Amino acid sequence: MKELDKYRKMVEIALRRYLPAPNVWPKSLHTAMRYSVLAGGKRLRPILVLLAAEVCGGEKKKVLALAAAIEYIHTYTLIHDDLPAMDNDDYRRGKPTCHKKFNEAIAILAGDALLTQAYRVIAREMKIPAERKIAIISFISEAISSQHLIGGQVLDTMLSGKFSRQKDRKKLEQIHYNKTAALLVAALVSGALAVGASKAEIKALSEYGKNIGLAFQIVDDVLDIIGDKRKLGKSGSDRQNQKLTYPVIFGIRRSQEIARKKIAAAKKAIKIFGQKGEIFNRIADFIVQRQY
Amino acid sequence: MKELDKYRKMVEIALRRYLPAPNVWPKSLHTAMRYSVLAGGKRLRPILVLLAAEVCGGEKKKVLALAAAIEYIHTYTLIHDDLPAMDNDDYRRGKPTCHKKFNEAIAILAGDALLTQAYRVIAREMKIPAERKIAIISFISEAISSQHLIGGQVLDTMLSGKFSRQKDRKKLEQIHYNKTAALLVAALVSGALAVGASKAEIKALSEYGKNIGLAFQIVDDVLDIIGDKRKLGKSGSDRQNQKLTYPVIFGIRRSQEIARKKIAAAKKAIKIFGQKGEIFNRIADFIVQRQY
Repeated sequence: MKELDKYRKMVEIALRRYLPAPNVWPKSLHTAMRYSVLAGGKRLRPILVLLAAEVCGGEKKKVLALAAAIEYIHTYTLIHDDLPAMDNDDYRRGKPTCHKKFNEAIAILAGDALLTQAYRVIAREMKIPAERKIAIISFISEAISSQHLIGGQVLDTMLSGKFSRQKDRKKLEQIHYNKTAALLVAALVSGALAVGASKAEIKALSEYGKNIGLAFQIVDDVLDIIGDKRKLGKSGSDRQNQKLTYPVIFGIRRSQEIARKKIAAAKKAIKIFGQKGEIFNRIADFIVQRQY
Repeated sequence: MKELDKYRKMVEIALRRYLPAPNVWPKSLHTAMRYSVLAGGKRLRPILVLLAAEVCGGEKKKVLALAAAIEYIHTYTLIHDDLPAMDNDDYRRGKPTCHKKFNEAIAILAGDALLTQAYRVIAREMKIPAERKIAIISFISEAISSQHLIGGQVLDTMLSGKFSRQKDRKKLEQIHYNKTAALLVAALVSGALAVGASKAEIKALSEYGKNIGLAFQIVDDVLDIIGDKRKLGKSGSDRQNQKLTYPVIFGIRRSQEIARKKIAAAKKAIKIFGQKGEIFNRIADFIVQRQY
């Protein structure tokens, strides 16, 4: 999406700015952290932080540190997810995964360090009142806790192979909510909290995030099956591991239909912002239309 | 130390209280988190949180959540340190390590979840002003960042085998400060920050923590060589890996002497508290005298 380019550029600068330089001790660790964070990607989560702040009447430059923090958290989950003991992925975004490029010990520690860097940046770099920072840390730490994001990864890991053919849509939605939507919601809500948004605004963004998150994961799993391997830049281990996914249970066509329904629900939620929220509609459309 | 029993009991209750129950979804993860946190140990760090709050004129019940958070962070570092890609330890405190008892994926995620639980508990469970919470999170997230605690682990990992005979005391002190002292300092300083301590009090506790931390690590490495394996409850992998340690470089007697000097410096720092700070002297003595 071309119109997001200016946001993406701001995000790329912020991502570099709030990470220790590669020549700062311990160099090997900082090199690995920067390798994984700066490996590219759509930057959807940090862009949502900026957009949420803006649509709630705030300035995007006030939430750049927060946007970086959210992307550090996302990268930490990817690095740990890719480890041999987890998904055992060798490639991510067309490049060797952190443990393949460096080694497993460095990958574990780089993930750990990015998680702590996220909290550190929110606490130390944001220029907003302490009450808002604590509201943000409360929300994010709940979203990525054992009962949400990490819980989703546990269930995902446990279900590998064993239950892949069970028609358990509720469990599937729970996995996907926690694994994908929880952090998208955290990005949107924390961006809104940073600029003092109203409860109604926060609720709308939360509902939007939940629905695009579920749609996003469905489309991801569909692309994992039909998508061009090179375009996607990863090696399709989900399919190899026979994980519980929408296309595995419902087939591709029905999965795409479910994704479209989620997108409609997301658009409905965002209506309270009127014309100002138009960009959120286009992002929602982009998610179901994307080819990679 | 018998006189710490009442503190230890409060800590044990808090550790259980601020962790999700084992019957809460995802059960396997919460079971693993509780297994590692509740596997015993001296509880030195959370006890220091309570003592620091008290010596600065606060109430220990006000910092129980913080004490638990500090021990969750300590446990996260132990779980990840023990992983096959890191120290590859099978036993910890006489019990199978997390990845041996469960599996590697669960151990990685249990460590991740404990780290986030620490921030979550500080943000959501402490009944203190937001400014103090942010001061605490700022301090802790710096202490356990890539440049301190995690940096110490990186250096520790990298030096295995390769440089174990180099007489590099400065580097050794840097590793030990970051690996061990940084979190002890964070425990003391955060306990003080929670109750609104003065700058002089915080400085004294910080200096004390740094020195007992270095002494603690030296004694640990000495015990690793001479100590009773069963008493220690771990399998002496440091020696097997030929890590850079004080006894490896200076021998046992000189290392013990260095540890005693650090203890003297710690006691000197704590003098500003007068009689109230007496317990800190006894803890310092205990560290050099301990046999396990």
